[in-house]
Amino acid sequence: KSHQTNQCVCKVLTVDTMNSCVKKVEYAVRGPIVLRAVQIEKELKEGVQKPFSEVIKANIGDAHAMGQQPITFFRQVLAMCSYPELLDDDRFPEDAKGRARRILQGCGGQSIGAYSASQGIECVRQDVARYVERRDGGVPSDPDNIYLTTGASDGIVTMLKLLVAGEGRSRTGVMISIPQYPLYSAALAELGAVQVNYFLNEERCWSLDVSELRRALADARRHCNPRALCIINPGNPTGQVQSRQCIEDVIRFAAKERLFLMADEVYQDNVYAEGCEFHSFKKVLFEMGPEFSSTVELASFHSTSKCYMGECGFRGGYMEVVNMDPEVKAQLTKLVSVRLCPPVPGQALMDLVVNPPQPGEPSYSTFIRERKATLSSLAERARLTEQILNTVPGIACNPVQGAMYSFPRVTLPARAIREAEERGQAPDMFYCMKLLEETGICLVPGSGFGQRDGTFHFRMTILPPTDKLKILLSKVKDFHQRFIQQYS
Amino acid sequence: KSHQTNQCVCKVLTVDTMNSCVKKVEYAVRGPIVLRAVQIEKELKEGVQKPFSEVIKANIGDAHAMGQQPITFFRQVLAMCSYPELLDDDRFPEDAKGRARRILQGCGGQSIGAYSASQGIECVRQDVARYVERRDGGVPSDPDNIYLTTGASDGIVTMLKLLVAGEGRSRTGVMISIPQYPLYSAALAELGAVQVNYFLNEERCWSLDVSELRRALADARRHCNPRALCIINPGNPTGQVQSRQCIEDVIRFAAKERLFLMADEVYQDNVYAEGCEFHSFKKVLFEMGPEFSSTVELASFHSTSKCYMGECGFRGGYMEVVNMDPEVKAQLTKLVSVRLCPPVPGQALMDLVVNPPQPGEPSYSTFIRERKATLSSLAERARLTEQILNTVPGIACNPVQGAMYSFPRVTLPARAIREAEERGQAPDMFYCMKLLEETGICLVPGSGFGQRDGTFHFRMTILPPTDKLKILLSKVKDFHQRFIQQYS
Repeated sequence: KSHQTNQCVCKVLTVDTMNSCVKKVEYAVRGPIVLRAVQIEKELKEGVQKPFSEVIKANIGDAHAMGQQPITFFRQVLAMCSYPELLDDDRFPEDAKGRARRILQGCGGQSIGAYSASQGIECVRQDVARYVERRDGGVPSDPDNIYLTTGASDGIVTMLKLLVAGEGRSRTGVMISIPQYPLYSAALAELGAVQVNYFLNEERCWSLDVSELRRALADARRHCNPRALCIINPGNPTGQVQSRQCIEDVIRFAAKERLFLMADEVYQDNVYAEGCEFHSFKKVLFEMGPEFSSTVELASFHSTSKCYMGECGFRGGYMEVVNMDPEVKAQLTKLVSVRLCPPVPGQALMDLVVNPPQPGEPSYSTFIRERKATLSSLAERARLTEQILNTVPGIACNPVQGAMYSFPRVTLPARAIREAEERGQAPDMFYCMKLLEETGICLVPGSGFGQRDGTFHFRMTILPPTDKLKILLSKVKDFHQRFIQQYS
Repeated sequence: KSHQTNQCVCKVLTVDTMNSCVKKVEYAVRGPIVLRAVQIEKELKEGVQKPFSEVIKANIGDAHAMGQQPITFFRQVLAMCSYPELLDDDRFPEDAKGRARRILQGCGGQSIGAYSASQGIECVRQDVARYVERRDGGVPSDPDNIYLTTGASDGIVTMLKLLVAGEGRSRTGVMISIPQYPLYSAALAELGAVQVNYFLNEERCWSLDVSELRRALADARRHCNPRALCIINPGNPTGQVQSRQCIEDVIRFAAKERLFLMADEVYQDNVYAEGCEFHSFKKVLFEMGPEFSSTVELASFHSTSKCYMGECGFRGGYMEVVNMDPEVKAQLTKLVSVRLCPPVPGQALMDLVVNPPQPGEPSYSTFIRERKATLSSLAERARLTEQILNTVPGIACNPVQGAMYSFPRVTLPARAIREAEERGQAPDMFYCMKLLEETGICLVPGSGFGQRDGTFHFRMTILPPTDKLKILLSKVKDFHQRFIQQYS
């Protein structure tokens, strides 16, 4: 220990002298449980005996890693963009070639190796705007309001960065749902903004009650300046799909309370439940008439990483800003220019997502078949997850209406909670860590997302292929029963 | 105006209520002059009459946009990574297939659409470490100290973020060269850190004098806590290549004064001048013996965007940290995990850069030929730029020893300076804007990089193809002479 202290004196940069906001950052989706999972994988490779033969990672929405296949058309176009000599190859269909040519013509020197404009390639932004218009039943979208981003995370952090100001009681507060996706809490910690929690209603399928928004806002106004309201729809980690009525209520609330709306809509194609439908915040906003559509400030986010394509590695995404002050927009454009541009292959992929094969084009039927297969299999897995988990006494799982996650509540015996506390662990971390050690299944404890005090959850993706998912769910079931017995 | 004020009252987010640090950010490389260049391009397309037929952009190190061709081998591998069906195609050589297979095996689900580990794909980090060892004559490199990044910019900003702490007189100061690459000033402004300027010696070919470092540090210690020293070698925007002796002196200085070293070495292959050679800070550090190699904290940065490949659009890069406190390293790993991972196609490309075709492999000779052609043509253009600019009375250009830029000094008539000041413009901005309007040539004024008071410069890339570069240089020459006449 004394040696360590000596060492610290010598170093310029230590935990004591580093950025204190960075120290407060937490990111459970890649936290200690995932580090331990990677370690266990290495141990298995080295021949260490375990009660299981492989680690199953259901901790992160990483579709391809779980075996989902990419959309053929997307990858054909990307291959041609990378190596344009392939444009002469008969193996590729004409529509794929056309898309590749269009993208390359939008690039400096017709190369995806050139920087793009800071805001993104112009023709891609045009395609995004047209996509948004189609999706929203004709509500106009201006390519100048589209910013391509490095995944949705980049856009969200950039918007939060613009919003953070003031000190002490006038410091910017940002309202986020609890449970939340921990990018939000991490970004707020890094920026030194105030996190303002509003709780989703677990009893009503993780729905959002405006009365709870009102409560949270009133509380927050006593110690900070709440200026923005973040919504994730469909929900992460909670899998709910917001009703149109609820979105209207939220917009009315934001308008009345003067809050900047941030709508994280990266799961917009992931809606499975009967009677549920995705409504974009922008569409609802415009349908509410000019009183709202010309005043409420909104940024909405999308990405290539989720939905039916699951292309996380490309870090593609966009955000659309609505009613943003023109001077602020100029500041935003300046800010993003410092990083030069989002990755161009990700921009190309985003273009394909918003401009996929059309009826009559050679790739159309394959594209539709692949997309449908993935989405209907996800719907099946969503159903399966809810059903099987609800057969376990002590686990209660809301319907997975959308997105890629279940967030079931687990009832933990008092003795387990005590033992976890003695170890300085959150009880659901204790539970998940034990699950990992005994079964090889990697989930994320609910405490990493936030939950009502005294309740415990885990987040599990529905992404393992159906066969594996069934095994996983039955292992979770067995484990939970053993765990309850052990600690009762 | 009153309407604007009303509007401001209604908006949640205005320039008055936004993050004030963001407002202070400036980024000349994509500043007003580039916005005007884009506008002029649109005007030309719309048929507006100009004294020129095209805009020549020499404002940014964007090789492919200026017509440089990508390395065939790199793009073949990337195409196969995007669309693995191509692995069966006879058109691709075996070594390219081998690289693609190795990269895909390092990816989740063997897809570049999966997230990688936050620090980057493991086998890519291994390849980077071996590259660093070869480059540095056997100095060991640990893959655990390699972090893949989204271009070098991302790594630099991340390191600065860790370093920023304290308030008032104990606020972190960061030493940067003047002239500098404006990513540094922009990042420091955004983070609210103190920028500590040290001046390069223009009279001695933009070399770095340790006495100037000493002066700058002493001055800075009166009002902040200088903790880091940034070096760009080869230099941007100034094109100098640091001598081994100078690097040693800088390391001694950093060790004595307890400064964290940040070495921006993205131009490491871009060395043209007779007698100049690239020495990495890490290599020199280790050759100075354990007194230094086991204490001085260093982060060095590299990228896929420059050198002979010029693949800016992929946003590939890495940083290596040396002697970093293990607890700080854990914080760094946590911080980068929030953004999930750098773009995987960029990681794949970085892998190819550090693991190119080897003697005996089928792609070797083509690779060497392509690389040599690009680098020798750049050397020729560096020479040409210096020579021609120095034939112009009132322009003085140091040798372009390395990197991709010349940063000549221009002597401006007093009347021009006065007129610029009347318009509220920096005199070299006035000069460059006039050059753009009259000739279509887009350069960046020296004021965007910083320069000694009363001196004026511009940064010009050497990237236009030789024929175009000659035209460009002769246009600059004519313009300068006209300008001098007009304002004398």
